[in-house]
Amino acid sequence: MQLIDQADGFDLALDGRIVARHRAAAPMIFVGQGEPSVQMNKGHFKIDDYVVARVPLAHARIVRRDGEVRLAFSAGPSDASSLTLVVTGGENDAAIRFEGADASINRLWLRIAAEQEERVWGGGEQLSYFDMRGRRFPMWTSEPGNGRDKSTLMTFKADRTGSGGDYYNTNYPQPTWLSSRRYALHVETTAYSAFDFRHGDFHEIEVWAVPERIELWARDHFIDLVRALSDRFGRQPPLPDWVLQGAIVGLKDGERSFERLEAFRAAGAAISGIWCEDWVGLRITTFGRRLYWDWKWDPKRYPGLDRKIPELAGEGVRFLGYVNPYLCVDGELYPHAAAEGYLALRPDADEPYIVDFGEFDCGIVDFTNPKAAAWFEDVVIGRNMLDFGLSGWMADFGEYLPHDVRLASGLDGMLAHNAWPTLWGQVNARAVASRGKTGEALFFMRAGFTGVQAHCPLLWAGDQSVDFTRHDGLPSVICAALSSGLVGNAFHHSDIGGYTSLYGNVRTAELMQRWSEMAAFTPVMRSHEGNRPDQNLQLDQDPDVLAHFARMTRIYRHLAPYLAELSQEAATTGVPVQRPLFLHFEGDPRAFECQVSYLYGPDLLVAPVLEAGAERWSAYLPAGAEWRHLWSGETFAGGAEVSVAAPIGQPPVFYRADAARADLFAALATL
Amino acid sequence: MQLIDQADGFDLALDGRIVARHRAAAPMIFVGQGEPSVQMNKGHFKIDDYVVARVPLAHARIVRRDGEVRLAFSAGPSDASSLTLVVTGGENDAAIRFEGADASINRLWLRIAAEQEERVWGGGEQLSYFDMRGRRFPMWTSEPGNGRDKSTLMTFKADRTGSGGDYYNTNYPQPTWLSSRRYALHVETTAYSAFDFRHGDFHEIEVWAVPERIELWARDHFIDLVRALSDRFGRQPPLPDWVLQGAIVGLKDGERSFERLEAFRAAGAAISGIWCEDWVGLRITTFGRRLYWDWKWDPKRYPGLDRKIPELAGEGVRFLGYVNPYLCVDGELYPHAAAEGYLALRPDADEPYIVDFGEFDCGIVDFTNPKAAAWFEDVVIGRNMLDFGLSGWMADFGEYLPHDVRLASGLDGMLAHNAWPTLWGQVNARAVASRGKTGEALFFMRAGFTGVQAHCPLLWAGDQSVDFTRHDGLPSVICAALSSGLVGNAFHHSDIGGYTSLYGNVRTAELMQRWSEMAAFTPVMRSHEGNRPDQNLQLDQDPDVLAHFARMTRIYRHLAPYLAELSQEAATTGVPVQRPLFLHFEGDPRAFECQVSYLYGPDLLVAPVLEAGAERWSAYLPAGAEWRHLWSGETFAGGAEVSVAAPIGQPPVFYRADAARADLFAALATL
Repeated sequence: MQLIDQADGFDLALDGRIVARHRAAAPMIFVGQGEPSVQMNKGHFKIDDYVVARVPLAHARIVRRDGEVRLAFSAGPSDASSLTLVVTGGENDAAIRFEGADASINRLWLRIAAEQEERVWGGGEQLSYFDMRGRRFPMWTSEPGNGRDKSTLMTFKADRTGSGGDYYNTNYPQPTWLSSRRYALHVETTAYSAFDFRHGDFHEIEVWAVPERIELWARDHFIDLVRALSDRFGRQPPLPDWVLQGAIVGLKDGERSFERLEAFRAAGAAISGIWCEDWVGLRITTFGRRLYWDWKWDPKRYPGLDRKIPELAGEGVRFLGYVNPYLCVDGELYPHAAAEGYLALRPDADEPYIVDFGEFDCGIVDFTNPKAAAWFEDVVIGRNMLDFGLSGWMADFGEYLPHDVRLASGLDGMLAHNAWPTLWGQVNARAVASRGKTGEALFFMRAGFTGVQAHCPLLWAGDQSVDFTRHDGLPSVICAALSSGLVGNAFHHSDIGGYTSLYGNVRTAELMQRWSEMAAFTPVMRSHEGNRPDQNLQLDQDPDVLAHFARMTRIYRHLAPYLAELSQEAATTGVPVQRPLFLHFEGDPRAFECQVSYLYGPDLLVAPVLEAGAERWSAYLPAGAEWRHLWSGETFAGGAEVSVAAPIGQPPVFYRADAARADLFAALATL
Repeated sequence: MQLIDQADGFDLALDGRIVARHRAAAPMIFVGQGEPSVQMNKGHFKIDDYVVARVPLAHARIVRRDGEVRLAFSAGPSDASSLTLVVTGGENDAAIRFEGADASINRLWLRIAAEQEERVWGGGEQLSYFDMRGRRFPMWTSEPGNGRDKSTLMTFKADRTGSGGDYYNTNYPQPTWLSSRRYALHVETTAYSAFDFRHGDFHEIEVWAVPERIELWARDHFIDLVRALSDRFGRQPPLPDWVLQGAIVGLKDGERSFERLEAFRAAGAAISGIWCEDWVGLRITTFGRRLYWDWKWDPKRYPGLDRKIPELAGEGVRFLGYVNPYLCVDGELYPHAAAEGYLALRPDADEPYIVDFGEFDCGIVDFTNPKAAAWFEDVVIGRNMLDFGLSGWMADFGEYLPHDVRLASGLDGMLAHNAWPTLWGQVNARAVASRGKTGEALFFMRAGFTGVQAHCPLLWAGDQSVDFTRHDGLPSVICAALSSGLVGNAFHHSDIGGYTSLYGNVRTAELMQRWSEMAAFTPVMRSHEGNRPDQNLQLDQDPDVLAHFARMTRIYRHLAPYLAELSQEAATTGVPVQRPLFLHFEGDPRAFECQVSYLYGPDLLVAPVLEAGAERWSAYLPAGAEWRHLWSGETFAGGAEVSVAAPIGQPPVFYRADAARADLFAALATL
């Protein structure tokens, strides 16, 4: 990083890009104090801040020494320094450390230079806006909320119960962005933070603490930025071979799940696994059937499962389960964990912090306690799950750590909250590693934060609404895949058909079909019965839907050689399977505008149908390639929006006419 | 005011009350810069602020001289002073002037000492919360919004069109409060400001400018505080005698209005006036019938009105009309006003600022131009209205001045916006005075701000929803009367039956009756046909409703001697006709909790039925008096919640058993 002196200030530049401007009249940094108000309601947070002070640090004393630049900032020229920024790094990579902060500072605002037409992406897994410019994005892991669009009746109804959400709510935020100016920036902190991209000539980073560090990367090409971030945050192993062989069918019907699986096979579906989240048994509440949060096989609901699992494996079908970081107080694990001091504590008493999940109470396993983590890894996941024969599971939750919890490590709850998903991922990954199953057992998470990349082999997009809505339905999955992919999560997938059915909003056959069509062109194809299985259409209830699904699973399986290659590439370089158009077409300005289509590897362009009733669909094909429509074989020059027929069964997909695997792609039309 | 030295700071005390605390670590004042964003949509404003800096002024240099105390505040001990507060005044009244402010300051935050149990009232005319403690109240005149309660479907629907509103939106804000600690505080500014009453040990005043002054009053009794505020803001003349003789019936049916008036009289209603807002004629839009905003008699809609007015006057019925500060571009007044330079200008061109009111455009008369104001007073109101024979009118609007308007006086739009209602009131009052009709011609306004008290003889509560809803229906009128009354508006009334009918929400007979019952116990009784007359019940459409209304008008008329006395008292002392219970019962803590009942003068307690379907109603009767129920004659000791039968026709009203006019009140039961 270069420091360039300017009249009454300086600029910081990284490989020719001005990344910060400081002038006495327009400082780059502000510090102060805030008094937060945080309320949690079943993973939904209401967070307000009363900003007591926000003081511009107008003056900087500059000291250059030993390959670093020290910027000692103060409010006035004669004041003592409030904070020193230590800039280190070479031409392309740099870091800013914070030292000597005044003890009273608990808020920090940093301005990064921006340009009018600049775009910014990342922010973890964003569900609404891929390009974040023009909006503010708090970084706080939480439920994403239902509806997520204040103009819809769904969101209004959900808001009345406190579960409505807004565009920025996500299970997986991460204070990292990539800029169209071809640099990336990461804020190393687990404190509450926010990116404010609403300003014309700067982006403002807000942090409710003095962060550890700001990290910066500049590269000539976006794909190299993505690789750099993957290097930084960690890489996932390649997808296991078994998962490429077909879909994972989600069923939670007890023993009957296996009968129903037969119907899928009979319909010609390629099946790689069966996922039964109810393997732990059920709890009946007035809200409906819930799982029994005591993590081990329930032989009442699945008699003989211990024998069934190897039997299925012999047929090429893996068995997957479910776990989360809570223990219900009426289970067998809770009393042990409580007695051993493995649980997080209340702020006001040396008693386990109990969280109400709706007619049942749970304790929180304190993963900052190494013994608690080791126990959960070895006994709960290791013995009860992996040794029992599970090949994978949904590692649910991670977002619900109360901000006022007391932890064994002494870490403050406000700092631990965002750290939790990564700790949770780490516990799962260590358990898998302890059995030598890394890259073989496949767990999937919705929650995340910085560093989860190193632990979680597969994201899923959380609990979409069972519809085509812009902010909470099928379209949000693409945004999620693209944003999380840029910050180092190579593998993404979603619940086919969506999950959340509320207020009479139920799945249509068309939705199931369109979702299946998209899922065939994602790293993992997995179905879910949803939160209200009885009220919602299931894949195996409608012969047309089932036949369509089965065909899509064969398309997915047919692409296995291509996907295996992408999976290996991801594991080697960190480039995600699903990619925004500009990752390969950075010379085409229109490639930067799109969040409704994606590249599936370098050679396929997928433009899922995102509306009900569509018979045709339009997609922008980027300039610089010739594109062939999968179903008609029609060839289009890139650089234009094209419209193609898109009946059910013919998802709008295009491939590069000169792709090495053009023949493989062409053969899809025959399946 | 006393300045009391404290370790590392000082306190300011007024007659023994600490009103401000300053310590270096907890300063009383913060200054900084904000960058506002203001969007107007038909009188609804979306206002955001990006606070660039908020600097605590931790250090104060104190100079006592010439009966004033000068407090020169700075951020650091060695910094130049950013702002000097000059404290003047005696033991009970004080003022704080601001001098020598740093030119960069456009935001100021001032903390006033608070106590945990303290209550605060005022804030102009508040429609939702009489006691403002625990919430934040921006002070910006605007449409109050429809629904005004984010949990209701009505508000959700209205929000989708930008007209939803929230609890603090009001036509008439005023940065003035009264505290239960028996002091009052006023911020002299027309800038955007906000009172933040959410904190435990301070109230925070935010002003988007350096205000002129903070004014303070301490008194031993609340009624003396109210008098002091009335002395400060101006007094209204007594109500005209004619209005005490009965109700003003609102009809807007052209000539047919007079036939319909006969039905009211035939039903035995006491009528003092007929109010025809359509006296200016109609404009047909796709939204429905609107008025023709060219302020003069429309002989097509009201043929022979010039002869009808004196004829009605001979029968004791006054004629009232309608005016507002806009001129439609297709009228006769607009071209004249435009040619003479009487209109407010666009920010970007020397052309009239045109506001779209929904399929018709209007110019804004620039009341900061003395010639424009004089023309509007003499020609529009004087000649076209008063000389024509009008005895009163709705002086509508006042809240819509765009923040980016250019005015003849050079006053910035952000400062002019809140000043506008008072200027509009002044124009009306001067016009009335020019014809010697002060206290005789009665106009009524919904918009207000500091100083409107000196000009506007009568407030009306704006455009309530046609229902019993807490924040936008009948109950909101009581809150409006009580809050505005405390800051010097003695006379208040509302549209009987409410005004706003949206999304199929229409008037019920019961609502009309309950509203009539309350209106009989307010200074003026006036009906309105509402925004959608054809879809809503009218008083003269249902014989029971009409008979009930007629009886209520006789009750109103019967109380004329009492009301005349209250009206005279208000004109002399500033004490409003409608009063919160604590104004006369300050020894009773429960009297401070109530915003659903009110004292009507010192001797009547009115507890309107505020719910549909009620057959009985409960009211708290304050301790220190014996209360007699109007209809049963039953006597209750004060200091208890009592329940009484409350069928339609028997509004829950109580009078002090020892009232001088007890016989007059008792006779109401015989009407």
